[in-house]
Amino acid sequence: MTNTAGSETCPVARTLALVGERWSLLIVRDAFDGIRRFSDFQRNLGVARNILAERLRRLVDAGILETQAAADGSAYQEYVLTERGNSLFPVVIALRQWGEQQLFAPGEQHSDLIETTTGRRVPVMQPRGGNGAVLLPEQTHVRKLA
Amino acid sequence: MTNTAGSETCPVARTLALVGERWSLLIVRDAFDGIRRFSDFQRNLGVARNILAERLRRLVDAGILETQAAADGSAYQEYVLTERGNSLFPVVIALRQWGEQQLFAPGEQHSDLIETTTGRRVPVMQPRGGNGAVLLPEQTHVRKLA
Repeated sequence: MTNTAGSETCPVARTLALVGERWSLLIVRDAFDGIRRFSDFQRNLGVARNILAERLRRLVDAGILETQAAADGSAYQEYVLTERGNSLFPVVIALRQWGEQQLFAPGEQHSDLIETTTGRRVPVMQPRGGNGAVLLPEQTHVRKLA
Repeated sequence: MTNTAGSETCPVARTLALVGERWSLLIVRDAFDGIRRFSDFQRNLGVARNILAERLRRLVDAGILETQAAADGSAYQEYVLTERGNSLFPVVIALRQWGEQQLFAPGEQHSDLIETTTGRRVPVMQPRGGNGAVLLPEQTHVRKLA
């Protein structure tokens, strides 16, 4: 990281040092969507094979994905989210919901994240304060290390 | 974007096409933290000036930041979050909270996001279903366009 030492104590900076790159987060998105094989990631993302291989390796090194033998007993290797990777779910939802709200024209169609039991769209996720009310940026501040 | 047309209807992909780059999200983080001037972003991030200038320009073009005259009447230009930029708050919180949970050793110190009225840390933000219960990835699926 080229960041100063101060930034390294910032959890946002540490997260972005690991996954703050478009392909990495798109791979994680695809993994949540059930994609497991190199060729399927490659086809879905349209990314160069060498870049995909490097990003997958970084995600495995970071403990976000792990490799396992193919479920069907074939010789393929599969990439699946670890518990750490699964805990990126709120990050992917936040990126999705911001895009839905900000980057699509009225009436323009997009994929939707559905709550399977109800068949309805996942409600908008918002930060809440200790009293349960929605928290606005101006109601918060960052406390840095001394 | 090198993505296929299918991915472009994915809100996650659109979001990452705009802000899926570490410096861009670190600039947004700093803007939430009250940083407004080029030189202050530059000092805090330790990023090369030409990269910072390019990322700021992209964020302004994307309607996430806007420029305004300095609040103190000096000749400086200031960069402030627009309403669209402010709505990235859940994205920054999700990145922060994942980092806090996953990337710091027990007892290792980090900056904290504080709810100003209570002085306490902002509670962990989690996606919730229609009934208000925490939603797990396996309880959801993506519905793609036909």
